[in-house]
Amino acid sequence: MAQGTLSGRRDVDFVLHEMLNVEELSKHELFADFNRKTIDMVVSEARNFALKEILPANEEGDKGCVFENGQVKTPESFKRIFDLYCEGEWIGASEDPEFGGQGMPNVLNLAAAEFFSGASMAFMMYPGLTHGAAKMIESLGTEEQKKIYVKNMYTGKWAGTMLLTEPDAGTDVGALTTTAKKNDDGTYSITGNKIFISAGEHDMTENIIHPVLARIEGAPAGTRGISLFIVPKYRVNPDGSLGEFNDVVCTGIEEKMGIHGNATCSLTLGGKGNCIGTLLGQENKGMKAMFLMMNEARFGVGVQGFSLGATSFANAVAYAKERIQGRELLKFMDADAPSVNIIKHPDVRRQLLVMKSYVEGMRALLYYVARCFDMERVLEESDEKEKYKALIEFLIPVVKAYCTDKGFEVCVLGMQVYGGYGYIAEYPQEQLVRDCKITSIYEGTNGVQAMDLLARKLGMKGGKPLMDLMGEMGNTVAQAKAVDGLKELAESVEKASAKLGEVAMAIGQTAMSEKVLDAFGSATPFLEVTGDVVMAWLHLWRATVAAKALASGNAKKKDEAFYQGQVKTAQFFIQTLLPMAMGKMDGVKTFTSAVMEIPEDGFMQ
Amino acid sequence: MAQGTLSGRRDVDFVLHEMLNVEELSKHELFADFNRKTIDMVVSEARNFALKEILPANEEGDKGCVFENGQVKTPESFKRIFDLYCEGEWIGASEDPEFGGQGMPNVLNLAAAEFFSGASMAFMMYPGLTHGAAKMIESLGTEEQKKIYVKNMYTGKWAGTMLLTEPDAGTDVGALTTTAKKNDDGTYSITGNKIFISAGEHDMTENIIHPVLARIEGAPAGTRGISLFIVPKYRVNPDGSLGEFNDVVCTGIEEKMGIHGNATCSLTLGGKGNCIGTLLGQENKGMKAMFLMMNEARFGVGVQGFSLGATSFANAVAYAKERIQGRELLKFMDADAPSVNIIKHPDVRRQLLVMKSYVEGMRALLYYVARCFDMERVLEESDEKEKYKALIEFLIPVVKAYCTDKGFEVCVLGMQVYGGYGYIAEYPQEQLVRDCKITSIYEGTNGVQAMDLLARKLGMKGGKPLMDLMGEMGNTVAQAKAVDGLKELAESVEKASAKLGEVAMAIGQTAMSEKVLDAFGSATPFLEVTGDVVMAWLHLWRATVAAKALASGNAKKKDEAFYQGQVKTAQFFIQTLLPMAMGKMDGVKTFTSAVMEIPEDGFMQ
Repeated sequence: MAQGTLSGRRDVDFVLHEMLNVEELSKHELFADFNRKTIDMVVSEARNFALKEILPANEEGDKGCVFENGQVKTPESFKRIFDLYCEGEWIGASEDPEFGGQGMPNVLNLAAAEFFSGASMAFMMYPGLTHGAAKMIESLGTEEQKKIYVKNMYTGKWAGTMLLTEPDAGTDVGALTTTAKKNDDGTYSITGNKIFISAGEHDMTENIIHPVLARIEGAPAGTRGISLFIVPKYRVNPDGSLGEFNDVVCTGIEEKMGIHGNATCSLTLGGKGNCIGTLLGQENKGMKAMFLMMNEARFGVGVQGFSLGATSFANAVAYAKERIQGRELLKFMDADAPSVNIIKHPDVRRQLLVMKSYVEGMRALLYYVARCFDMERVLEESDEKEKYKALIEFLIPVVKAYCTDKGFEVCVLGMQVYGGYGYIAEYPQEQLVRDCKITSIYEGTNGVQAMDLLARKLGMKGGKPLMDLMGEMGNTVAQAKAVDGLKELAESVEKASAKLGEVAMAIGQTAMSEKVLDAFGSATPFLEVTGDVVMAWLHLWRATVAAKALASGNAKKKDEAFYQGQVKTAQFFIQTLLPMAMGKMDGVKTFTSAVMEIPEDGFMQ
Repeated sequence: MAQGTLSGRRDVDFVLHEMLNVEELSKHELFADFNRKTIDMVVSEARNFALKEILPANEEGDKGCVFENGQVKTPESFKRIFDLYCEGEWIGASEDPEFGGQGMPNVLNLAAAEFFSGASMAFMMYPGLTHGAAKMIESLGTEEQKKIYVKNMYTGKWAGTMLLTEPDAGTDVGALTTTAKKNDDGTYSITGNKIFISAGEHDMTENIIHPVLARIEGAPAGTRGISLFIVPKYRVNPDGSLGEFNDVVCTGIEEKMGIHGNATCSLTLGGKGNCIGTLLGQENKGMKAMFLMMNEARFGVGVQGFSLGATSFANAVAYAKERIQGRELLKFMDADAPSVNIIKHPDVRRQLLVMKSYVEGMRALLYYVARCFDMERVLEESDEKEKYKALIEFLIPVVKAYCTDKGFEVCVLGMQVYGGYGYIAEYPQEQLVRDCKITSIYEGTNGVQAMDLLARKLGMKGGKPLMDLMGEMGNTVAQAKAVDGLKELAESVEKASAKLGEVAMAIGQTAMSEKVLDAFGSATPFLEVTGDVVMAWLHLWRATVAAKALASGNAKKKDEAFYQGQVKTAQFFIQTLLPMAMGKMDGVKTFTSAVMEIPEDGFMQ
């Protein structure tokens, strides 16, 4: 009980197979190995590993890393599971076997990742960042860079990071001051200070590879003058062996609210004038490289937010079934009535249903987007491929912001279900809240995501991405209308989708008018209602699949409650939570002038 | 910057004087001393003390208490400020001078308390619990008990607690098993284990007085057999001197998410058969005593939630004015444009306005209710007195649940405004989030508050309390309609108030039908929309006062921005946040059957 548990796999199977039919990906040569049996085996293996090895390490991880003399000591248990994780070849699970990967579809990799992150987000940041850095080198590196680094990183021999933030350059990357001076041999000498570097220094691997954003001497100001470099902690000789220390010095780690097991480092590069990097990609194209990796990175953060919520929900359900407290409401005044498990109480059920709606809605969204990535990979240039690309672009900011906000909200509710025990460190719920909070902040704050949605994604290709998305919603609505008992729910989703279209049109137009700032003042609630309507759509989809399975008469006995649960969750979301989104859309449509008109001194207290 | 700041006093003055005219309380003999000058002096003194003494202690407090050999060592800085706090006679600020109090109105005491709690909630729990325990003895004790304890507690010579929770008796108080056996001398021998006892053991005072809920041998099961006892840590001789240790042993303190400076203790009473208590009030009337104290206790927790939010808001505004990051939105593409303070960015302004709406809305609500307490105290039996009583009863669960939920939400937003720095312990925002979270859980979870509102308060006296509240709203609407520029806002509030009335009627009726459980499944959103509409009403009231002040032409120059801020905040809340409540009311009205119909196994994941 104290350690907590993880999501079961029933709903993962439902999304993979009954909603998305991911087995069909195996028709494409790239994923030919991934038939149903293999998929199920991977999911089993991942969940087992997460439950038996990663989850037990998470509480020790919360005690944090130790910084001494420039060294970071990570929790012992983390080192042990990192090795096991690498043995399982999980870092490169979805990557090319040529570089040590397993070549699995993104959507399957996600099923594994949700259990891993849900078991220990702080731990998973080590392999996660390593994967991201390696992927960047695989995408942009020279043959030589690829040969030296990529396989060593996908196999976990070396770790990776991302050195972007500086004290005065957070959201505004263009303000960074780290410099790179070209040497005669074509390498660069790097000098600067970076902060908030997750896994910036640790003792889990023999080397750490830092992709670093810096400005080449004489380059333009702002984002147009930023280049990307590979800066290893220890230099790498041409034969792959390690050379001397590369003057990347950790000057401290942050005390923070959560993810204590992952060291957040301040790094000084070239403090002794001895830090050498090689250019990754082209000069002054560092920001372009960032954008190239952005979808994957932001998707990954959405997965973090979601998966902590999923774990909190799994804990809350288990606790609510086990914890005995109070009598049934209708027997409240009868002192002789037996005490019951708290899942009998209406308000506890309501809380669990709110959590379930968001967790399962987010799971469907994330798997849907992951499958879009896979489809984009396997398809030749075509309208269909363009559709998947567009859906990805449009949905990524929603995934990042909505799944981290709602994931956090779910974690908070999961504490509440535990009552006083939820606030106590002995139980798992409060750590989930603390760990989850960072996800709304890093990798572009959620406010930045909302601006991305409004400024870049909404108007892309004349609004095609949103139209494609609404087309998908329309398909689901049409199917649901034909299913017994779902007609009213389908009509509500249809109305919500139409209203979202109107609001999108209105905010797009306002953003191009003299009221542009008022539009941007409504960007966040616009992103939020987009997420809400997406949830409603996906719940309707779920309910359609479940209702058909029930109606077929072929559902296994033990699956019946699960399917009924799907239908009831859709009903709950669409009847009680969707109406809030409808009201919120009314709020967005006012494009209130108050946000920009209130004088700065009007915030006086 | 790192330590943070506190709310200014401009808005406190606005609520005290311009909205509520609290000076008029001095017309009543009880408060004759509290003229404008005295009121202003008290507020100044409280804010100064909070800012200069309490706030600097809060960060050290977060490092926590130490438990060794049954002793709890509190942070050194807390002991120092506790003595200063007692010297200032703040514990009994609103109490009878006969017992060491200062006799000030509740509403003025609240103005002090918001600064104190906002500076350090963990610290304020020590004097707060001491006050509550003393008040209980003052209300229920024999002359002798009052003589021995009350003054010593109001002056802080001795501290107090409340021993209620046991491992299997949290929300269900009636399940408690601590027993009391009557001795020949009329005292009782107490035996039992209590948990989650805030300030249950510490080294700040020479004695700690525990009010304890226990069951007298042979008493009925459930809440009807619970009695209340005074159990001091050290026995007290008839002359007031301390006697022997009373066998109240602290067996451990909890590691928890926040309020680290306040020890949360497990206490064993009578482990050596040597714990003696005296009955407080009547046998088997312990729950009645709890109810007597409940309004004050729940109000106090609402104040905690609010005041941490207020501090987070004050910090966020200061940070947003100071932190330079990024260019103005309209100059985004111009690399040569200067970087600006982030309060210029629309999404940051929006976040600040959300925080401002809730903080100032809650402040108005709490001061309004505190003034109701005062009016109830000074009035003779009359319809008017009954009105204040009814408003208090109805609003207390809203105050407790809404102010703690929204206070927490504001704290979370306050982190977000800080970006990455918000997550770092060096800055004040993350501690506020951690400290605040407990307020939605203790003193009756917020779910319990929602049940209280629906089951006890809504139908009280044929629904009079809500009608009285709606009458108050109607008055404000009528006044606002006559003010230039507020007509539309007034109409929106009028509609929301009417809709709240409909929803209240519907949920009340549903709760008396066979769909009673569905009604209770909607109790929490019903409480939430009640709070939302109350916020809208109070913002309209604020805007009316502010608009009149602006129109009068007499407003001081430096006040103009403040008043404009009031009008714009009302506009923001009513145009963008109130519509969400309108939608949420639609959701409540469905009384969805999904909550109760989903099978327990339907939560399978």
